[in-house]
Amino acid sequence: MIRSIGVFDSGLGGLTVVRQLRLALPNENIIYLGDTARVPYGTKSPRTVERYALICQRFLLQHPLSLVMVACNTASANALPAMAEASPVPVIGAVEPGAMSALAASRSKNIAVLGTLGTIASGAYERAISAADKSAHVVTLACPLFVPLAEEGWGDSDIALAVAKRYLEPLFAEHKKIDTIVLGCTHYPLLRDVIAKVCESSCDHEVAIVDSAAAMARSASRTLGRKPQDKETKSRGTLRCFVTDASRMEELAPRFLGETLDSLELVDL
Amino acid sequence: MIRSIGVFDSGLGGLTVVRQLRLALPNENIIYLGDTARVPYGTKSPRTVERYALICQRFLLQHPLSLVMVACNTASANALPAMAEASPVPVIGAVEPGAMSALAASRSKNIAVLGTLGTIASGAYERAISAADKSAHVVTLACPLFVPLAEEGWGDSDIALAVAKRYLEPLFAEHKKIDTIVLGCTHYPLLRDVIAKVCESSCDHEVAIVDSAAAMARSASRTLGRKPQDKETKSRGTLRCFVTDASRMEELAPRFLGETLDSLELVDL
Repeated sequence: MIRSIGVFDSGLGGLTVVRQLRLALPNENIIYLGDTARVPYGTKSPRTVERYALICQRFLLQHPLSLVMVACNTASANALPAMAEASPVPVIGAVEPGAMSALAASRSKNIAVLGTLGTIASGAYERAISAADKSAHVVTLACPLFVPLAEEGWGDSDIALAVAKRYLEPLFAEHKKIDTIVLGCTHYPLLRDVIAKVCESSCDHEVAIVDSAAAMARSASRTLGRKPQDKETKSRGTLRCFVTDASRMEELAPRFLGETLDSLELVDL
Repeated sequence: MIRSIGVFDSGLGGLTVVRQLRLALPNENIIYLGDTARVPYGTKSPRTVERYALICQRFLLQHPLSLVMVACNTASANALPAMAEASPVPVIGAVEPGAMSALAASRSKNIAVLGTLGTIASGAYERAISAADKSAHVVTLACPLFVPLAEEGWGDSDIALAVAKRYLEPLFAEHKKIDTIVLGCTHYPLLRDVIAKVCESSCDHEVAIVDSAAAMARSASRTLGRKPQDKETKSRGTLRCFVTDASRMEELAPRFLGETLDSLELVDL
């Protein structure tokens, strides 16, 4: 039986993880579920996030899977233990790979994590980073405007730059040694350029910006015992994509996936 | 049996309607349900909005009600016929009262309606306005950043002003005769001042800004055959408030209601 990799996200941002998976493991089949009817998870309570994440995982597990990947940082931060307990196959979240990437990138071990309200409130990144390196100093900041700016297609606009300044300048003013920023939400890579600009204008040293999508793909390769591809190959695996609501898919999906979607199936969960 | 007014909203913005109801009908008991677990509705498809709205109305109708008020413009625009059909008591939406207020306020009958993606896509405001006055000229514009700005507490910030300019200046440039703007979303009154500033700097005539909360309260008074209060009286009716997710309630609720909430009950729907 051919098993697929199941990828779960609160919406379409998780397609950035699919993009990295298809580069690293071009022969794997992927089944994606975006809970677009209930997106965003970032403002919901841990209890509600866990409830919806388990419903979504149950749907994915109706298909033969080799592993489940939780692209959504908020779900990873709040629902991973419950999801792992309910799954017969390994479950990979976004937080652990993102935390490890940050530690690898940081020289001074002064790391700032940006995320949704739910991710930041969970404390999951601090726990993951300090479990690996007790000496690391972690500050966190919720940036609720970043997701709607990315979805409006304004990720590189002057308004996004003003918003990034308003969030980040006080952070850098208070924590001058930050040398690494974790984009702890699948949408934030769409604001990478404006975040980099604020880093440059606020700091006199270089700041590394890491996101977890590529690290998640490497983690999937290790878990499956596959050697990740070094050179870019066109993916030969299939991609089956389910959503719980079909609004704005054609507009938003290619922004995250970097290719157009062949198929999109609507499911009531 | 004492019957309450049931107020349904996708989140907490509908508390602006409760505020007006308690001014106009201070003796009425109110039962509020905010579907905060699935908020926002504005980006979802009509099918999903209708599905969730019916689930929420079914919950409200478990209590003895005199009428149902749909504070959420997106639900009013997409689910009102289905809700009215499923309800044994009258159902009042936000669109019709808002449309009538706009016609009453406009001299030139050139009206702009601002709303969520779902409200604007529905065409409900154009239909309601042109059903009452065929000669009226209506333009509509989705402003997806307004809700997160209001929820971030940045409704009167320079960033909100920049966003309002980016949305509204092209609208006024193309439609110079607009003399009335409808705030077609419960959150938008929190950006009223910056919207007024853009109107002033973009137009050489006065622009009226109307929202539907007060008009909805008048419509409720008429439907119930009550005389609305002229002077402000402290409300003696009870307010029972249900939400489907309890995240950030203490922070957000008073911003919309104008008073603190006595009770808040969590319900799984």
